[in-house]
Amino acid sequence: MKQGQTQIAVMGVTGYAGAELARLLLRHPRLAGNPSLFLGREGSARESLTAIHPQLAGLSPDQLCVEPFSWDLLAARGVKALLLATPHEQSRKWVPEALSHGLRVIDLSGAWRLEDPWNRAIYKFSDEGSPIAAKTQAEAVYGLPELHHAAIAKARLVANPGCYATAIILALKPLVSAGWVGLDRGIVCDAKSGVSGAGKEPTAKTHFMYAADNLSAYALFAHRHTGELLEQLELTADDITFTPHLLPIPRGILATVYVTFRERHTAEEVEACLRDFYTDSPMVRVHSAGHLPQIQHVARTNFCDLGFQLAPDGRRAIVISCLDNLLKGAAGQAVQNLNVMSGWQQTEGLL
Amino acid sequence: MKQGQTQIAVMGVTGYAGAELARLLLRHPRLAGNPSLFLGREGSARESLTAIHPQLAGLSPDQLCVEPFSWDLLAARGVKALLLATPHEQSRKWVPEALSHGLRVIDLSGAWRLEDPWNRAIYKFSDEGSPIAAKTQAEAVYGLPELHHAAIAKARLVANPGCYATAIILALKPLVSAGWVGLDRGIVCDAKSGVSGAGKEPTAKTHFMYAADNLSAYALFAHRHTGELLEQLELTADDITFTPHLLPIPRGILATVYVTFRERHTAEEVEACLRDFYTDSPMVRVHSAGHLPQIQHVARTNFCDLGFQLAPDGRRAIVISCLDNLLKGAAGQAVQNLNVMSGWQQTEGLL
Amino acid sequence: MKQGQTQIAVMGVTGYAGAELARLLLRHPRLAGNPSLFLGREGSARESLTAIHPQLAGLSPDQLCVEPFSWDLLAARGVKALLLATPHEQSRKWVPEALSHGLRVIDLSGAWRLEDPWNRAIYKFSDEGSPIAAKTQAEAVYGLPELHHAAIAKARLVANPGCYATAIILALKPLVSAGWVGLDRGIVCDAKSGVSGAGKEPTAKTHFMYAADNLSAYALFAHRHTGELLEQLELTADDITFTPHLLPIPRGILATVYVTFRERHTAEEVEACLRDFYTDSPMVRVHSAGHLPQIQHVARTNFCDLGFQLAPDGRRAIVISCLDNLLKGAAGQAVQNLNVMSGWQQTEGLL
Amino acid sequence: MKQGQTQIAVMGVTGYAGAELARLLLRHPRLAGNPSLFLGREGSARESLTAIHPQLAGLSPDQLCVEPFSWDLLAARGVKALLLATPHEQSRKWVPEALSHGLRVIDLSGAWRLEDPWNRAIYKFSDEGSPIAAKTQAEAVYGLPELHHAAIAKARLVANPGCYATAIILALKPLVSAGWVGLDRGIVCDAKSGVSGAGKEPTAKTHFMYAADNLSAYALFAHRHTGELLEQLELTADDITFTPHLLPIPRGILATVYVTFRERHTAEEVEACLRDFYTDSPMVRVHSAGHLPQIQHVARTNFCDLGFQLAPDGRRAIVISCLDNLLKGAAGQAVQNLNVMSGWQQTEGLL
Repeated sequence: MKQGQTQIAVMGVTGYAGAELARLLLRHPRLAGNPSLFLGREGSARESLTAIHPQLAGLSPDQLCVEPFSWDLLAARGVKALLLATPHEQSRKWVPEALSHGLRVIDLSGAWRLEDPWNRAIYKFSDEGSPIAAKTQAEAVYGLPELHHAAIAKARLVANPGCYATAIILALKPLVSAGWVGLDRGIVCDAKSGVSGAGKEPTAKTHFMYAADNLSAYALFAHRHTGELLEQLELTADDITFTPHLLPIPRGILATVYVTFRERHTAEEVEACLRDFYTDSPMVRVHSAGHLPQIQHVARTNFCDLGFQLAPDGRRAIVISCLDNLLKGAAGQAVQNLNVMSGWQQTEGLL
Repeated sequence: MKQGQTQIAVMGVTGYAGAELARLLLRHPRLAGNPSLFLGREGSARESLTAIHPQLAGLSPDQLCVEPFSWDLLAARGVKALLLATPHEQSRKWVPEALSHGLRVIDLSGAWRLEDPWNRAIYKFSDEGSPIAAKTQAEAVYGLPELHHAAIAKARLVANPGCYATAIILALKPLVSAGWVGLDRGIVCDAKSGVSGAGKEPTAKTHFMYAADNLSAYALFAHRHTGELLEQLELTADDITFTPHLLPIPRGILATVYVTFRERHTAEEVEACLRDFYTDSPMVRVHSAGHLPQIQHVARTNFCDLGFQLAPDGRRAIVISCLDNLLKGAAGQAVQNLNVMSGWQQTEGLL
Repeated sequence: MKQGQTQIAVMGVTGYAGAELARLLLRHPRLAGNPSLFLGREGSARESLTAIHPQLAGLSPDQLCVEPFSWDLLAARGVKALLLATPHEQSRKWVPEALSHGLRVIDLSGAWRLEDPWNRAIYKFSDEGSPIAAKTQAEAVYGLPELHHAAIAKARLVANPGCYATAIILALKPLVSAGWVGLDRGIVCDAKSGVSGAGKEPTAKTHFMYAADNLSAYALFAHRHTGELLEQLELTADDITFTPHLLPIPRGILATVYVTFRERHTAEEVEACLRDFYTDSPMVRVHSAGHLPQIQHVARTNFCDLGFQLAPDGRRAIVISCLDNLLKGAAGQAVQNLNVMSGWQQTEGLL
Repeated sequence: MKQGQTQIAVMGVTGYAGAELARLLLRHPRLAGNPSLFLGREGSARESLTAIHPQLAGLSPDQLCVEPFSWDLLAARGVKALLLATPHEQSRKWVPEALSHGLRVIDLSGAWRLEDPWNRAIYKFSDEGSPIAAKTQAEAVYGLPELHHAAIAKARLVANPGCYATAIILALKPLVSAGWVGLDRGIVCDAKSGVSGAGKEPTAKTHFMYAADNLSAYALFAHRHTGELLEQLELTADDITFTPHLLPIPRGILATVYVTFRERHTAEEVEACLRDFYTDSPMVRVHSAGHLPQIQHVARTNFCDLGFQLAPDGRRAIVISCLDNLLKGAAGQAVQNLNVMSGWQQTEGLL
């Protein structure tokens, strides 16, 4: 995509990730001004963006509206890329159609992240097994630019990763790739997320009285993002245990990742391993040995911060990974992918 | 009521005030043990109390259940007093029936608090104007023991006050009764409440993402508790402005009450006025001049803490009033009323 | 100031307002790049900005340091404007020196905001009464661009307003200027601020255990910002009562302002009065009648949001004013003043 | 100790654990009334308890004071048992003296919890290696009543466990004792604590602005409580990894404990193992398989709640353990120990 001709459409701006996506795109230097952005929804109602998200008032042109969507309309507007912040099943339905209309797609849902049907088993999609689904899945590139930059650059379909998966994969990939991590002791990923990760729907668990002054674990041995860890890190289910917790904060994830090395390593070696891996990845900030990242420093940024501590035995290490679940864990990563697909700097509109 | 023969029934324990009511009654020294407490609900389902409120596990006998309710059952169990933590309309329906069955009632809802139909105008009840409603209202005593101890002691129906109303009335009554408060400048009551005051129903406004890191005002010039202020303080709507706000905390109310005196007073006089008024009121703690109460010191207690600051002019004063909206503002006050009705110490089971 | 030649120095970046100031200036479109920004401190230590504020990593050039400051160094660097986020007494000392070196100054402290010595009485400065102090004070322009745009544009010394004062003055000025506000009933300003307003020093009151799950009022009839209200709104101490409270949130102020009109007005008239006053003020967002602002919508923005509710009597009105105490209440306002002084758009670097 | 003759002294009530200790003892049924409780401090100042902890007003007799302490005074008062909520070094000094005066002692600090000098190595005490210290240590019983009831009953010195250690040991002991836990994969204990665990001293890390909206890990591979895990569970440092985190809540700990079994087990077996172990331990509540505890349900109680989830492979299990760090993790456990030492019901004064 070249500037000027770039026309981006977004579906599903009503949720938290959608609001962040709208905010980022509205002030993206390559997408300045109204004409290049189309916000769509199903149905026939038109509603101004600031009515849906009052906090965007003043940032968004008043007249910018979420409009009834149709494929014809997207074509008429010259839309080249479609970003979907829609529910999983919605994305299962729309992505094949979008591809058939020649659009490039970034899908923020979990619809197209997993290659192995086995990993999709817990959350079966209604079209599972259909030829069109298989063909679509075959096109999907897992949208973690730190791992798949080249493939994303030319992809027609980018499956934007899960928030927990992003934090954990970025923590582990350098060490696993280096062949350092021994799997006989297993890997433990203890992750904690703010409430925005649970979505905008008011439920018993998103009630302030439930979430505040509390901490709870959930989805033990059964979280949807586990499959992403297995595929991206090339592990088996037995190798890794991942437990999410609900933190009493609006946004941010911290993952505490426990690994054992095959051999002794020094802190300098570990730090170098991480730094080398992310040399060309401006959105990952590697901390010096013993300096641990924390959620506050990444909240409302697109950075993933990594730090670690090595045990005195030189064998056990704990990697701490932090990011904002709505940005690097969702909307920010989608914009980063859009930048890569468009041949722009990865960080454009994200600093 | 005498100990031993005391049988208390509670309807509506599923909400926050209901849970606190159950907790208080379960460890009330006069109501020790299962037999004296009946927890009821409409419908035919039986459910253990700890299934509804896991935090009561270990405090409540495991076998204690919320049971299908009928008037016959209450009679068979020898129930003498009924506490209702039910929605307003439910209480409008049940209270007349309960009275006709010879029960004494403490109603935590807003159904029977207001004498003047004008003050009930905003929230019209469906039975408004019926003879039975009028007769029931005539029996109702406003359940603020600091003001109406004698009437509560012999009442058949106690209308438990609103949480905001309790905080504000206790702040103002001594000064208004003393004739000190000039009304030509009006009284401003700026009150702030924790989220439990908004109820257990998950809504957009009780979502953690709405309430946390936020403050919002609501129901300006239109809050249901305003009528209670007018009736109990004998003011007109023009005399007093009351604004509630939603605080990002689980529980507690702080009301900042601005008054102007007709004449200059000293801090000593103001403190004496408050202390004298509450000499026999063990649940109100009056602070020394310049020592202001705060929510933390009353949370999870049945105390209302009062403090004040006098302007250098000796004419303007700010009274700060704090209480726990679920205790002194609801369930604790109900138990205090039960104590008064039963001839027990006001503080029994409340310290 | 013209672009290119603009050289800005900031003193006092270690605090919360200082961090925000550094963040804003680093990404200000007119100040792009290292050379135009100098961060100074007393003493001889040099320290990288990201060591002081890790959350700025990736936003700030790694090599950007807080450096030992001297007037000669500022001159050598070609600094034209000095922003001070320093303690009051520090600013009392430095501002006259800076002016004598020909610098234009924006002072974020409370050192030079008050013209009337009476209003400075509670917080006497050590140099109070000196000729140089009097001369400096005479130069100071109160830095609220919505009120004093022209004077700020050519000022040598801008005294950046207090956070509470900004919220309250913006709420009241249109109605007071219109002559609508009757003072016989007085004005009540009940304001609530997040903990960042209390500064970075760890104290008993900024301890998490004190501030969380709590609300407390402080400085009744004795807050430093009161004088700003009196001078900017041309009121006497008797006309207005201002009470601050400490909210359990990181940042944001909400002020609930109670006024009585001399005559009846309609909601349309009130809304028009506010809108007209702020026609040319892009950082003030006036809400429609009955739509109340809340802290979440202004946090991390430089907007001040205003909304109101009119009583049925058409005489009493409540204006709700919200802003971020570190931005529109401090660092953002300073940048807005810098923009005005430099002849740039008010909103540059602030959206 | 028999009722009536019981005289308890407490040193160190100014901190958070001390305040809880005072609260519990003041309403303990066996210690009713002033005469049986002595609150002491070093120095010559006398201060009323409610001046130090305003939230205890109304619960504590007004005249109850923290008084200058001396061993003679304790003897004159007939004190039989001393509870120390004092800093580690203070307890190192006072405990031997108290024992020499014939007092029984419960020490809440970390001074006497560790038998193995190796485990005390990181936090060397100043008297380390002295004969009196060795003799005192030899008398100390680790005060976890669920493990050492008989020894505590007759102990002269009870070393009250660390808060994290209590949560983790209670989670692991039944499974480790049963010989089920395979150590070749190691045990991971990922624990999270509220801010009260960091003490009352205002520091950069207890500042609201640091702790709120944040999560941070600390003391990796280096936390003082680790030694308690090793000794009580009879493990080596290589077997277990323990990481604490600072949660943005006032109180409560949740520990997520990852174990691997030597052989496959069913959920029924695991639940039975836990339930059997705690049959006679009323302060431990074992949840049914798949029902996970959360912090809210134990906050402000002396319970430790345990739940677990078994992996589909029947080999990996996650045990979730929750408690209130100031109660079961400190003051409540001390009272539980006092109950055991006195031959009372473990739960007296704790429900």
